[in-house]
Amino acid sequence: MDAMKKGWFSELSPEMWPGQCMSLEYEKVLEDIKSDYQHIVVFKSKTYGNVLVLDGVIQITERDECGYQEMITHLPMFCHPNPERVLIIGGGDGGVLREVLRHPCVKEVTQCEIDGKVIELSKKHLPGIASCFDDPRANVIVGDGFKFMKEHEGSFDVIITDSSDPIGPASSLFEKEYYHLMKTALRPGGIVCSQGECVWLHLDLIKSMQDFCKELYPTVGYAYATVPTYPSGQIGFTLCSLDDSADLAHPCRTLTQEQVQEMGLQYYNTDVHTAAFVLPQFARKKLASD
Amino acid sequence: MDAMKKGWFSELSPEMWPGQCMSLEYEKVLEDIKSDYQHIVVFKSKTYGNVLVLDGVIQITERDECGYQEMITHLPMFCHPNPERVLIIGGGDGGVLREVLRHPCVKEVTQCEIDGKVIELSKKHLPGIASCFDDPRANVIVGDGFKFMKEHEGSFDVIITDSSDPIGPASSLFEKEYYHLMKTALRPGGIVCSQGECVWLHLDLIKSMQDFCKELYPTVGYAYATVPTYPSGQIGFTLCSLDDSADLAHPCRTLTQEQVQEMGLQYYNTDVHTAAFVLPQFARKKLASD
Repeated sequence: MDAMKKGWFSELSPEMWPGQCMSLEYEKVLEDIKSDYQHIVVFKSKTYGNVLVLDGVIQITERDECGYQEMITHLPMFCHPNPERVLIIGGGDGGVLREVLRHPCVKEVTQCEIDGKVIELSKKHLPGIASCFDDPRANVIVGDGFKFMKEHEGSFDVIITDSSDPIGPASSLFEKEYYHLMKTALRPGGIVCSQGECVWLHLDLIKSMQDFCKELYPTVGYAYATVPTYPSGQIGFTLCSLDDSADLAHPCRTLTQEQVQEMGLQYYNTDVHTAAFVLPQFARKKLASD
Repeated sequence: MDAMKKGWFSELSPEMWPGQCMSLEYEKVLEDIKSDYQHIVVFKSKTYGNVLVLDGVIQITERDECGYQEMITHLPMFCHPNPERVLIIGGGDGGVLREVLRHPCVKEVTQCEIDGKVIELSKKHLPGIASCFDDPRANVIVGDGFKFMKEHEGSFDVIITDSSDPIGPASSLFEKEYYHLMKTALRPGGIVCSQGECVWLHLDLIKSMQDFCKELYPTVGYAYATVPTYPSGQIGFTLCSLDDSADLAHPCRTLTQEQVQEMGLQYYNTDVHTAAFVLPQFARKKLASD
């Protein structure tokens, strides 16, 4: 069960998912480098297309990327009546940027990714995902999201945090201070959505995050998507809105099936949006406000 | 990536999920035998409790069993106004039997499991799952479900097929002839629910099954549950009803949160029931009737 052995990549994390491991068979390792921030591997898998791995953890595969990219983006975007200015923190593979730009109402998307190497290697090896970095509405900054937000109070309608897990360079993105900072960077009625781990694995962390979010924002929710190559096959999303009358499970902008097809969506539709907030009983009970 | 090596069990299937593999760390192998039908392994895992494996495929773990057992049982049971007589095909670990018996309206549950060894070893090593074989309402038969159903026409309100995958002893349970046979064994208004694989892995199989089910039954549906230790982290269910006015996504018997707690449910509730029928766009499009 070493990380890369006999043609298989294995995703081990004794801290985050002890005792379980997803493996993908690979044909070729395309990159294996240390950037200033993390260990970056890209490999060509046998059945999931090209795969991006940061510090030993699968970030995205070409085969199942739609579940994550579409949900982390369109859950907040369709809950906002008119998102014109959007900020992405992280998301170096470019998939969230691609999804945000599917919304014609968007005038400008700013992306702060701390590790330029992730962008560079995604452009090279994940061209279908990293397809929009040159869009005229995109403003891509290689730098620190904390610093950027401190300099841009009251600026964004939607902030999406597409980060890795709470161990490593992204750990501060799971803390209350970060959610407070995002709040200051939002325009009135703004919404944030962040990668929120998995109810089968990290329910205590999710509970504590929901609790501090409720101290900061009038409306808070939690939704999930199924993604085979994430630990336990699912990933959740933490959503917060400054609008105290928002109903995050019921988007204010809805799509017909025809519109879903026109937008080219593979995973998201309006029914999926609403269903994503329905959690298994054990998670619902734990996260209940009372 | 051998099946059991260096303290890890790996679930390989080049036919059913090529290029991917879930592994569980184990502390001790409790059983490793060949029955008349299959290779049975039970091991004590490090973080998922005891685990039952048939022909190299994880059937159930003590930690995440609730998702599968509750959903395959309660989806059909709560769609029936008064299920009194229930048939389980397979389900040798006893989990479905346990769930069926949570319904006070049930007068008799018959279970046909072809492999008595699975029942025996589940009683020994999965006592919390195989807890109801001695219930006075349970009638457990070690034998062939096909033969049994042929001898019991028009007998059951609900038939649940808790089988392994379509490779091996359970392959015939994924064919049209089997769904025709179940139809003959149902009472008027009866409902069947079967293990139905995963939309991320087996969408072509699911599509062909939905198609032949629609030739046999007036009402057909497909739902899913998240289960970390199943391939790709989810499992689906094929549901068919003889009632042409049935709405499988909206159960005719609903539960309050208080009733959910009283029944001791960990995964299922009425909202989960309805949300389980909402599929990702790519699956919805493929399975659409048109």
